[in-house]
Formats: sequence, structure tokens, C-alpha cells
Amino acid sequence: MVVGMNITFLGTSSAQPSMTRNHQSMALRVDGDIWLFDCGEATQHQFQKSSLKMGRITKIFITHMHGDHCFGLGPLMCSMTDNLNPEKKLQLQDATQQEQPPIDVYGPARLRRWLRTTLSSTYSNLGRYYRVHEILGPEEEESIDDPTHFHPQELLGTTVRLTPAAVLDVGRGFTVTATAIKHSIPSLGFVIQEPDVMGKLDRDTLVPQLLRNAEALFRQQGIKQPLVLLGRLQREGKPIQLPDGTWLNPPDKKQGRQVVILGDTCDPSSIIPYCQSPHLLVHEATNAWTSLDRDNLATTEALVEERAVQHGHSTPQMAGDFALRIGARTLILTHFSARYKGDDSEDGIKVMEEIRQLALARFGKDKDTDLYCARDLWSFEIKHR
Amino acid sequence: MVVGMNITFLGTSSAQPSMTRNHQSMALRVDGDIWLFDCGEATQHQFQKSSLKMGRITKIFITHMHGDHCFGLGPLMCSMTDNLNPEKKLQLQDATQQEQPPIDVYGPARLRRWLRTTLSSTYSNLGRYYRVHEILGPEEEESIDDPTHFHPQELLGTTVRLTPAAVLDVGRGFTVTATAIKHSIPSLGFVIQEPDVMGKLDRDTLVPQLLRNAEALFRQQGIKQPLVLLGRLQREGKPIQLPDGTWLNPPDKKQGRQVVILGDTCDPSSIIPYCQSPHLLVHEATNAWTSLDRDNLATTEALVEERAVQHGHSTPQMAGDFALRIGARTLILTHFSARYKGDDSEDGIKVMEEIRQLALARFGKDKDTDLYCARDLWSFEIKHR
Repeated sequence: MVVGMNITFLGTSSAQPSMTRNHQSMALRVDGDIWLFDCGEATQHQFQKSSLKMGRITKIFITHMHGDHCFGLGPLMCSMTDNLNPEKKLQLQDATQQEQPPIDVYGPARLRRWLRTTLSSTYSNLGRYYRVHEILGPEEEESIDDPTHFHPQELLGTTVRLTPAAVLDVGRGFTVTATAIKHSIPSLGFVIQEPDVMGKLDRDTLVPQLLRNAEALFRQQGIKQPLVLLGRLQREGKPIQLPDGTWLNPPDKKQGRQVVILGDTCDPSSIIPYCQSPHLLVHEATNAWTSLDRDNLATTEALVEERAVQHGHSTPQMAGDFALRIGARTLILTHFSARYKGDDSEDGIKVMEEIRQLALARFGKDKDTDLYCARDLWSFEIKHR
Repeated sequence: MVVGMNITFLGTSSAQPSMTRNHQSMALRVDGDIWLFDCGEATQHQFQKSSLKMGRITKIFITHMHGDHCFGLGPLMCSMTDNLNPEKKLQLQDATQQEQPPIDVYGPARLRRWLRTTLSSTYSNLGRYYRVHEILGPEEEESIDDPTHFHPQELLGTTVRLTPAAVLDVGRGFTVTATAIKHSIPSLGFVIQEPDVMGKLDRDTLVPQLLRNAEALFRQQGIKQPLVLLGRLQREGKPIQLPDGTWLNPPDKKQGRQVVILGDTCDPSSIIPYCQSPHLLVHEATNAWTSLDRDNLATTEALVEERAVQHGHSTPQMAGDFALRIGARTLILTHFSARYKGDDSEDGIKVMEEIRQLALARFGKDKDTDLYCARDLWSFEIKHR
């Protein structure tokens, strides 16, 4: 069955929030569940402004430990688990009796210890269990895992080693592949792969075939409603032979959607082996040389790129190059400097279109729908090809 | 000299933010400096919406470690010290050469270790030094203080013991007295005491006396501008005899302003010995029995109070009683449940006036200006009597 899949950009700023952009966070909706990517400060406020429900979050991925990507995690976890509802207060021994599965948090070194210290220091009492799976380089030390120091609602998370990638089993047949990408501190890129799914049944062909065999199906096999075979065909994906010898063919499989979400980076090429022409690439574009810089003679396009790379960041051109290189169908830019307004103001629209054009020229696509600059609370539907 | 002193309520919600109220934080302005009391999530966002400058913060007081009072501290400290400006990046050995003094953070047990872990785990590189002074009960353990674990911009803070109060030397002649007040976790109340200040000069009397002596002052003492003596009178506060024998009298001293700011509490009576009819009392009023509850027959005024106290909180009546007991001149209520809107909506105005009246009935004052319910971004001028 084809499930709904879309992404909402909860925050699109880099470093500091502005009046039009909050800190980084993205909600990937997979059939109603929310997988959150990054959780800057005030991400819970952004949920309140959106139509998304925090309670639907099942997994949280942190790309890297810079505060603008994780400072909102502690407060979000308190609010999303209704930590102040006394009836939700739990004891660790009841973990097996929970209706809701634990919240899985994935991220780099330091995450487990920091989150534990944060929730414990603030006497936070969650209404759901959680566990942190740390994704570590071959040499990185995992956070202390002495169970006597666990937060009361913490369960044992796994330690996943990057060799050089790590495949996370996230359920629903999906895989998430993580790799280390280049930034000023350890930063992760994620390839989210949906399993292949059945396409649509060709009802125009199938229904007449079934109706033609209705009487024989009832007589020989006791099937009162011949159309139930459509459900079996869709579910099992195998051809079915009818009494008159005709074969009912299941629909062709559709290739599962692939979404690539990158943490801050000046060079994500290590993720290339795991990308297969993704349906969507989300890439940062922190700094750009735009008309805002034209009066500053000391700045050039090359200097802007040099400085961006020095800080581990990318320009729109770098993002466009990378999208072309991995054959992405759609590129969405995010993580913009506070200089670039994310609203309907004249200067905001102007500069964001300039940034889009800079990336588009390198990406080489020509349709408006192939490349977007994200705005806070904007959603994008991820469709099959 | 009389300095300006006002308080801005940056956030007035309890527990979770709402569309009209952010998490708890108050900015006390003392002659241009900002002393911040509590720092819930997105306090830096509230600064952006106000006319206050984060860079003016010199001291931060955390009343208690519940997340809604402190989750915004890490991100605020990053932004207020311009942590991304490469020229501001410091090495610890340069601490003595800093133009700006370190940021002093005062608060309960766990604060130092949590802040250190937070700033270190997120690779935060501050543009100013900071130190945490922990205010501890007689038996409470101080956070680990091994200097090898310090954050690179951390300086050694002090450990202050409550016996049962602790007097903090905060400079400018002010004292801040902290005591433990009753809540579900360790919570502090603060008495901020301004030193006594000179009143206004009685220029109507003084100027004719000086002018009458102008010639003699010039002849005998070489004073060309007799009015300069007004400055000396104000500065030194001592009577001055004029050539004709008249005594110029300095103005009467004005009693310094006293502001009492309480953390969450269901019983702050331990602070009473340190209060002298404060100019302002800021008291929480988390829960109230209002017209919103009239249809719920299972709820009564007594039950609302019982539940508030169970959670360590107060009702408006409790706040009004306490304000009367310490002879406060003005009472400001804050820390409201998300049920009570903090905007100009009809239902918001109605319920907040109900809450005000509940407190007013106990406080026994009759002027509108004696009791307020705080709103986000609202400022109150603290005047001498």
C-alpha cells in the first residue's frame, strides 16, 4: 500500500533564530508517524503553530550536536510525553506494559549523556520511555552506560558504529543509512529508504476478467464476491489463475521513495555510495553571495564560498552541484543565515529567489518544482516517480 | 543618584508555552544592566520581540531546575555572547584581559554541572566567560568542580550555603538575599535590595541661597559657578556652610527599593524575615478557580487549592494573602496555566480580571495599580515610595 509521506520544515535558520525563521527542525511524516530530524530551540513552539501533533513523534534523529540543532530536545520530550500529567508518571519496571513504544533518539557521540543529564538535572518525569542510539565513528567513545545512572524513563539504547555507514532498522520495512559527512564537528547524513511498494491494480482489465469467472469461482471455490481476489492480488503480489485459465497479474512494484537529509556540511560526498537518485535531497545552504553583498567590495563569490567552507558550511552552488551529482529529483535548501528573510516581504522574496537561482544553475533542472528554498512551517509532499 | 529600575516579563506561562505566553523569564533592569530571573525555552526569542538587548545581561538567577525555568539558558548564553563571531573566540588564559566581566549565574544544585555538560556537549564556544554560583541547602552536594572538566569559557564559581538565607554580593551596593521556599523540588526566593539613595535636591530653596552668596564664594573660595555646590551636595550628602552662615542641606535619603521575586512555591513564608514591605512582590499563581470551572461540578475552590499545593503551586488567593502578610506595595502575579490566555481576547481579559480580583480580595488593596497579572513583554516601572 502506498503510504503518505511528506516533510514539514519546522525551522530553517542557521545559528540564531530570526523573526521569520526558527532553529533547525524537520518533521518527516510516514503514514501518520512523525520522524523528527533535528530539534533546535523552540521546536515545540513550531509544532504548536503547525497542524502536526507532537504525540505522533516516534523517532528523533539528531544530525549533529551544535545547539541550534538540538537545544529543543529536552523541552520537546517533556511536552510531547505530557510530563506533567500525574497519571502518565511511570516507574521503570512498567516499561513492558506501555501501550506506546519508547521514543527512539538517534544521533552522534555525547547525545545520550547530555540528554540524560538534561532530563535528570531538571527533574523531568516523562510520560513515555525513551532510548538513545549513538551513531559513532570507529574511534569515538560511547556515552557512559551505567544503568544506575539512567534517567528513570530511559531504556538501554544501542551503539551503532559507522563502518563507514550504519544501517538503522527503523521498522515498517524502511531503512535509514547514516554516514559521517564533513563539518566542523561530527555531523551525520541520513538516507531514508522506503521499501518497494505495489503499484495500483489495473482494475479496467482485472474486473471484467473476474466477473466473467464469477459463477465458476462460486461453484468451484465457494467465492461469493469475486472482487475479493483483487485484495489478495494486491496483498500477496502473486499471479492468480482463474477457472477459465486466465492469469490475473499483480500490479508492478513501485520503487520505494528515497529521501536524503544532511546535517550541516561543506562536503557530503561520503554519502554518495548510499544514494540512488533520491526523490528528495535536503541540503543546507548557509551562506550565499547575493545582491545584499554587491555593495561590499571586499566580498566576492569565491570569498563567500571560502568562508562557508571554513565554517563547515555550503553555498547554494555547492548544494546544486551535489544534487546533480547524486541525481536527486528534487532539492530543498534550508539552514539559512538570519540575513535571508523567510517571509513574504519584498526583500525576502527577492533574495530567496536569487539563492534558488544560484543552486538551480548548477543543478541544471528547469522546472520550478525541482528546487525549493524552505520556509518555516512549509510542507512538501514526497511522491513516487 | 536615582537609577532606573523596571521589570519586563519575558514569559509568563507555567509548564508548557501557549500561543499567548512563553515559558518563565523576567528581566530586571538596573540602570541599564539586565539581571535575568529564570530562562525558560525560547527566552532569546522573547528578547528579539522586546526592546531589550541580550548583551546587557550581567547576571542570571535561576529559581529552580524545572525545565520551564531553565531550558533556554544554554541557547541564550550562546546568542548573548555572540558565540559564532570568530573574533570573539577566546582562550581561558585571556580571562583577565576581558573587557566585559564574566556572566554570573546563580541557582540551585545541579545547575553548574548541567550547564557545563550542555555547553560542552554542544561544542558551544562563548564570546564571554561565565561562572555558576550554586546556592545550596546545608546538606546538598555541590556540582563536581574539577577544573580539568571546566567548559573552556567557564570560571570558578562560588558555593553559597543557605543558613537559612544566603546574601549574594552583586555589586552596585545592591544585595540579593536568597532563601529556600517550599515547592516540589528545591526552589529559591530572592530579595533584591537597592542601597538607600539620595532624594531630589530642593532647588527652590537652595538656588536663591547660592546666588545670594555668589560674589562671596568667588572672592573667598574662587568658585566661579556657585551652582557647582549643588553637585557636591548631591554627591557627598553632607551639609555645606555658605559665607553668610547659611547651611545648605543635602536632600533626605530615600529608602532603597526592595523587590521580591519568588520561584514556584506553595509556601514562601521562610522568606518573610528578609522582606521589609517590598516595593514589588512577584508571586506565582499557577492555578485558580474561575468561571472556566463553574460547569465542572467535580471542582471546587478548595479542590483547586488542594491540587495546586499538591504540585507545589499557589492560587491567586494564596499570593494575595502572602503579599498582605509582608506588606508589599505592589503584587504582580505570573506563571499561569496555559488555560489563561495572555492576550486581548475577550475570554483572556475576562479570566485574567477574575484571577486579579481573587488575589485583590485577599491583598485588601483598592487601587488598580496595586495588583497586576503579568503578560508577556509587559514592563513595570519600580518607583521609590
